[in-house]
Amino acid sequence: MIQTILLKNRPKGKPALSDFQFLKEDKELNIQEGEILLEANYISVDPYLRGRMSDAKSYVPPFEVGKPITSGVVAKVIASKNANFKEGDFVSGMLDWKTLQISKGEGLLKVDKDRAPLSAYLGILGMTGLTAYCGLTQIGKPKAKETLVVSGAAGAVGSVVGQIGKILGLYVVGIAGTDEKVEMLTSEFGFDHAINYNTTEDMGTALKTACPDGVDIYFDNVGGPISDAVLFNINKYARMIICGAISVYNNTEIPKSISVQPFLVKNSALMQGFIVSNYSEKFPEAMKHLSTWLAEGKLNYTETVVNGFENTPQAFLDLFEGKNKGKMIVKV
Amino acid sequence: MIQTILLKNRPKGKPALSDFQFLKEDKELNIQEGEILLEANYISVDPYLRGRMSDAKSYVPPFEVGKPITSGVVAKVIASKNANFKEGDFVSGMLDWKTLQISKGEGLLKVDKDRAPLSAYLGILGMTGLTAYCGLTQIGKPKAKETLVVSGAAGAVGSVVGQIGKILGLYVVGIAGTDEKVEMLTSEFGFDHAINYNTTEDMGTALKTACPDGVDIYFDNVGGPISDAVLFNINKYARMIICGAISVYNNTEIPKSISVQPFLVKNSALMQGFIVSNYSEKFPEAMKHLSTWLAEGKLNYTETVVNGFENTPQAFLDLFEGKNKGKMIVKV
Repeated sequence: MIQTILLKNRPKGKPALSDFQFLKEDKELNIQEGEILLEANYISVDPYLRGRMSDAKSYVPPFEVGKPITSGVVAKVIASKNANFKEGDFVSGMLDWKTLQISKGEGLLKVDKDRAPLSAYLGILGMTGLTAYCGLTQIGKPKAKETLVVSGAAGAVGSVVGQIGKILGLYVVGIAGTDEKVEMLTSEFGFDHAINYNTTEDMGTALKTACPDGVDIYFDNVGGPISDAVLFNINKYARMIICGAISVYNNTEIPKSISVQPFLVKNSALMQGFIVSNYSEKFPEAMKHLSTWLAEGKLNYTETVVNGFENTPQAFLDLFEGKNKGKMIVKV
Repeated sequence: MIQTILLKNRPKGKPALSDFQFLKEDKELNIQEGEILLEANYISVDPYLRGRMSDAKSYVPPFEVGKPITSGVVAKVIASKNANFKEGDFVSGMLDWKTLQISKGEGLLKVDKDRAPLSAYLGILGMTGLTAYCGLTQIGKPKAKETLVVSGAAGAVGSVVGQIGKILGLYVVGIAGTDEKVEMLTSEFGFDHAINYNTTEDMGTALKTACPDGVDIYFDNVGGPISDAVLFNINKYARMIICGAISVYNNTEIPKSISVQPFLVKNSALMQGFIVSNYSEKFPEAMKHLSTWLAEGKLNYTETVVNGFENTPQAFLDLFEGKNKGKMIVKV
């Protein structure tokens, strides 16, 4: 039996389970010459998928209503008529939310389950790690002893950004939404300081105290009022790496924030949005560093693993409630 | 008699004449070895001076209450005990709002009144031209046929930006606040299209019509709702050059705008604030181009010249009412 999760409606505001549709089919999948049959093992759920559920112009085309959702997936090759893959191989790539599917192998990377756990290829050794590395190094251009602030710091990307910051000799402050996450940032991920935005009344003052030398680099995963507070603390030539804006993704009205322009002029500061594929020429360098640091024990990562293919939509919804620590993954 | 204009109070919101104080002194100015005596000829009034009248942290220290305002001034050397300057020389530099003053010559540039009118050294061949050239080329990194939008386009910097854009082969759209200015942008400065924001109800749609290929570069002098409207029309990898935010400089509450972060992420777009001195190593190149283009008749410039030293504060206030076309200058 093949199970599939389709986009049923384009969500209005916050997505709901009713925006997804489950399909069960009893059919045989027969592969043709050049094709492989894949069984999904791990599915990545990520905030950016929210954008693809809308109809708006974006960097990737929107999902189609009535078609499967796609995201990062690690899958096992269970039959192959493609010379590049053999039965028993594991691959990682953008695949449908399906328990079984046929692929021609385009865009799939073979992954080595003896080098790292399979789920790591959706996280620290996948898009998550690459996003953290490329954003921080290519836009942030960090210099040792500078101050780095990370929002969404206990999230998949944020926790890696902070650790790379420490490896590169920065003073690192993280912002997260629970005491447990804040504790984890300093104890497990080596952040110098962490702030719980849900229990902090005046984030501007809290950041000022946490960053006595001001903020040189801001890795922004959230947008909204947290990012507004950071603006009041930036230094001359500050670099703000805009990776995501999860705090406003579900807004149905156009969100308003403090006008950034006066801050940018006063401080000759930069804000740069990006997606990881802009820096694909840096991926080999990034993978070399990330896998070395991982092997040396310099990088920790946390996963929140949800069991069961049928729980994939709920796992995605939980991202917007901050229920994940680190990378949110579904084990099929 | 020496006349001086001092900062009397830090303005709250919009500056008023009552924030300035006039001082008349009947005294002799005697220069010492190494000094020169200067008689002011032209005084530059600029929106950025508003920032220096506040107490807030900025890229230049605030003016002191009870002390003279300073800005760009062209002055004549009327006595010299400094080997670098002789009587009859003209100089340009940051000087006090005084009819007569003593200087050691530091930071002053000698200017040639036979090469261009003296007032041009406060504008097209001064900070104005350098700001336009450096911002557009160093941050905008223009490629021929791209679309450039300029706000505050009839202002001193904006009108030069648009003309350089045309010289570099861009499609150039200007935004200004009166029909007369809009007419001037296309007829005198060669903009391809211009929009009057005061008579346009829906700026987003107007920009979409004016920029059928979207916006690649935005040279932003104003901030506020006009810049919000531009965001809806930016292309992937757009560069937004944040030169000023005159629309919000007088706000007493922290101004709010549309959240820029989602637009930056979706389009991998850049916003970079700057002041011209960040690019001082580019000044020789910039001056070479600007003076060549000026001599070749490829660059026009407009000045609004106000007569009388005593009218300097009013000329400054008029900037915020958009009463200037091009560079606002006081002839002493």
